Amino acid sequence: MKTAIQPTRQENYPEWYQQVIKAADLAENSPVRGCMIIKPWGYGIWERMQARLDKMFKDTGHVNAYFPLFIPLSYLQKEADHVDGFAKECAVVTHHRLEADSEGNLQPAGKLDEPLVVRPTSETIIGEAFSRWTQSYRDLPILVNQWANVVRWEMRTRLFLRTSEFLWQEGHTAHATKDEAIQETMQMLNVYRDFARDFNAMSVIHGEKTPDERFPGAEVTYTIEAMMQDKKALQAGTSHFLGQNFSKAADISFSDEKGGKQFAWTTSWGVSTRMVGGLVMTHSDDNGLVLPPKVAPQQIVICPVYKTPEQRSEVLEFCHNLRKELRSKKYDDEELRVHIDDRDIRGGGKQWEWIKKGVPIRIEVGKRDLDKGQVFMGRRDQDKKQGIAIEEFKSKVVEMLGEMQDNLLKKSEDFTNKNIETISSKDQFIEYFKNPDSGFARVNFALDSDYEQVCKKLKVSARCMPIEDQELSGDCVFSGKKPEKVALFGRSY
Amino acid sequence: MKTAIQPTRQENYPEWYQQVIKAADLAENSPVRGCMIIKPWGYGIWERMQARLDKMFKDTGHVNAYFPLFIPLSYLQKEADHVDGFAKECAVVTHHRLEADSEGNLQPAGKLDEPLVVRPTSETIIGEAFSRWTQSYRDLPILVNQWANVVRWEMRTRLFLRTSEFLWQEGHTAHATKDEAIQETMQMLNVYRDFARDFNAMSVIHGEKTPDERFPGAEVTYTIEAMMQDKKALQAGTSHFLGQNFSKAADISFSDEKGGKQFAWTTSWGVSTRMVGGLVMTHSDDNGLVLPPKVAPQQIVICPVYKTPEQRSEVLEFCHNLRKELRSKKYDDEELRVHIDDRDIRGGGKQWEWIKKGVPIRIEVGKRDLDKGQVFMGRRDQDKKQGIAIEEFKSKVVEMLGEMQDNLLKKSEDFTNKNIETISSKDQFIEYFKNPDSGFARVNFALDSDYEQVCKKLKVSARCMPIEDQELSGDCVFSGKKPEKVALFGRSY
Repeated sequence: MKTAIQPTRQENYPEWYQQVIKAADLAENSPVRGCMIIKPWGYGIWERMQARLDKMFKDTGHVNAYFPLFIPLSYLQKEADHVDGFAKECAVVTHHRLEADSEGNLQPAGKLDEPLVVRPTSETIIGEAFSRWTQSYRDLPILVNQWANVVRWEMRTRLFLRTSEFLWQEGHTAHATKDEAIQETMQMLNVYRDFARDFNAMSVIHGEKTPDERFPGAEVTYTIEAMMQDKKALQAGTSHFLGQNFSKAADISFSDEKGGKQFAWTTSWGVSTRMVGGLVMTHSDDNGLVLPPKVAPQQIVICPVYKTPEQRSEVLEFCHNLRKELRSKKYDDEELRVHIDDRDIRGGGKQWEWIKKGVPIRIEVGKRDLDKGQVFMGRRDQDKKQGIAIEEFKSKVVEMLGEMQDNLLKKSEDFTNKNIETISSKDQFIEYFKNPDSGFARVNFALDSDYEQVCKKLKVSARCMPIEDQELSGDCVFSGKKPEKVALFGRSY
Repeated sequence: MKTAIQPTRQENYPEWYQQVIKAADLAENSPVRGCMIIKPWGYGIWERMQARLDKMFKDTGHVNAYFPLFIPLSYLQKEADHVDGFAKECAVVTHHRLEADSEGNLQPAGKLDEPLVVRPTSETIIGEAFSRWTQSYRDLPILVNQWANVVRWEMRTRLFLRTSEFLWQEGHTAHATKDEAIQETMQMLNVYRDFARDFNAMSVIHGEKTPDERFPGAEVTYTIEAMMQDKKALQAGTSHFLGQNFSKAADISFSDEKGGKQFAWTTSWGVSTRMVGGLVMTHSDDNGLVLPPKVAPQQIVICPVYKTPEQRSEVLEFCHNLRKELRSKKYDDEELRVHIDDRDIRGGGKQWEWIKKGVPIRIEVGKRDLDKGQVFMGRRDQDKKQGIAIEEFKSKVVEMLGEMQDNLLKKSEDFTNKNIETISSKDQFIEYFKNPDSGFARVNFALDSDYEQVCKKLKVSARCMPIEDQELSGDCVFSGKKPEKVALFGRSY
């Protein structure tokens, strides 16, 4: 049977991904190099993610604020590793107006004394503010988050996964003690893990990045790594312990209880619209997007079916009453999100549109069904449509949504677990990754081992050192030395 | 008595405004020219505004989307008036990386073939998308909104009122008919008026801008104008009927029911963080910010007062129970927002902090009061603190919040109405504005009259032609011609 998305995952995974996004109308490329347009259905998913994350941040004591889009070049330079990490991919503002040349063509004019960099991330500009806000230990901790757009000039872009401009949140905190900053870093890593798992139904492995994979300027970077259906890893969120690197660079200092000068300990953490791409790749199938009910902008779409004006008014009245009743029910502490699609288009086409958009439950309501006290229901996680008694549907709908959410997570967990293999030698490691269909290799790892050459050839990278899986047995697969860590390696986005 | 804010409104209104913002910790200037940092309390106000506007937009059928930050120069040039309007104040990106020069200093490198303008507004870049999205009349209307940052390079900036970067929402819609687009323009003007009045308790006059005050590229611009306490006007939101100007420039065309090619009719409308500045200037007094309860990030702050550890635990327990009980109550369809401030700082200082931050109701809870079954309450709209029986407070609190909200609106309305004067001759007009303390002049106005010279000298401008006040009587004050409109003139921000 021909699937709604061509090619299938099996045939061409990257192209399948693009086609799922197109068929679900999530986003598209814009005429501006590397910048995407997030269309309403895609933005609806991001809004749902935003709302949940925002609540989780506030529940853990954070407040939102907003800092400038532009960073003076001299600020970016304050932390050496940091500027090295971002200098190659910065959008640079050099002029502040446009002026017609002798041929009447507009040209940049009003050259700035100091170029401004469009923020690729905001540690340096926020650090400047923190340094002014922090006088005494009583001013700490500072726990802020910002919802913003950032720009990293990417040469090879892919919708949601890698774009020159993307939307994200960046949390920035400053603390009086190292311990407190480390606790914060871990707390936010856990928030991200819970968010991915409990809201997006994505199984993720949370762990520490190896030293060379750290955020530029960080002491330690933690990550949540998710396995996509092509078994590649997606880094879906990161939480950084920045030590005193940025506080020393920006002079975020305070007088302690004894009046001595101390530098603060800072953290930063972020999740971006990349998570939408991860969601798409985790759950979707060859008929298009599959949305976990908690994330879905609409959880239930009701399609009225009628032939005559009399039928129309009867069926529509029923649909509106049904929606009202469904909206009075709650799932995940929120009213059910129910949409009536009464557009005048062919019923089959309409159904397929919602399948491709990943709506969890579709209901068709016709006059004859109503007379029989039933509706037709399609669940996105099941193939067949079925008649269901109206009362039964109403009483079971919340349970069904919960079931779908749980099933999607279970599937993602099983897939991930099935595709992690413990590897005990370098040869086995090379053999494992020669197979283009391999997942993650779980190895014993000495932090100072020279693994990069092997990995580079195989086009794999260190994903993380999982926090919940550190049972060592054997030597480092790369160096034969005594390992400090269990680490996961894999191909990645 | 010395007021908390120095100088007072009377003494120096612009400086008072800056000091209110500082005392309430709403925002501050950043090291980046013209860009502000919105601090948590200020951002909390903006978040409340966002949430309400977003709901109002969705209730009127709009969806959110996101478009690129950058606009290729050639796109901006497509509409002639539009580019003229914005060319003088654009941030221009010309390079996409940084490279060390021979002295090791980073310089812009990787010159772009075509400069990119940081969006000052998005008609042109969104128009390009609309042109691709619109094939048939069935694709219309398109009703989208975007929450975004925009940049207009301002030489003289003022926190919230005029900054180089600001946050806003911009709605963009495309319609098959002119009538429908005009209806949309008016609908959104009314949404803005209702939002200002019913949520922000700001009296606004909604009307049409005179031709020379239109948005660059618009056929008609509507505005909501608010009178600040110094009697100057603040343009607080605008809704534009763009005719077919942008649809012809970007080729937003569609085939109609008969298969003929038509150009769409478009609108755009926006409200920005400027509204926060308007809110501050409308309600605040010489002791600082005054927040209408619907907007306030916290509506009630509870300050426990105690001396011994035993008192502390008893008082705190009471406070937490009180907060829980208050949170179960609703005002404006939302749970009451209640904060317990248990910081270890002097009680008087703490009280003044919340006064300056504009929190509607403050509660002090001490051991002795509890024994008497009462608490001390301060209302931001009344001078004195008073003891109030706990049960009475609980039963009246929602009513009090409503009363404060209504009073603030009433005050703003009365002030505005009192300071509009009908003027019937040019001499009288000049006389009126010679007084630096004058408000708005209401005049009969012929659209083609030459009023600019007179107004320029007086430093006043046409604010709007009010929709609900068009009773003409007499000749145009500027030209003596037969007037088409009643118009309001005034000084402005």
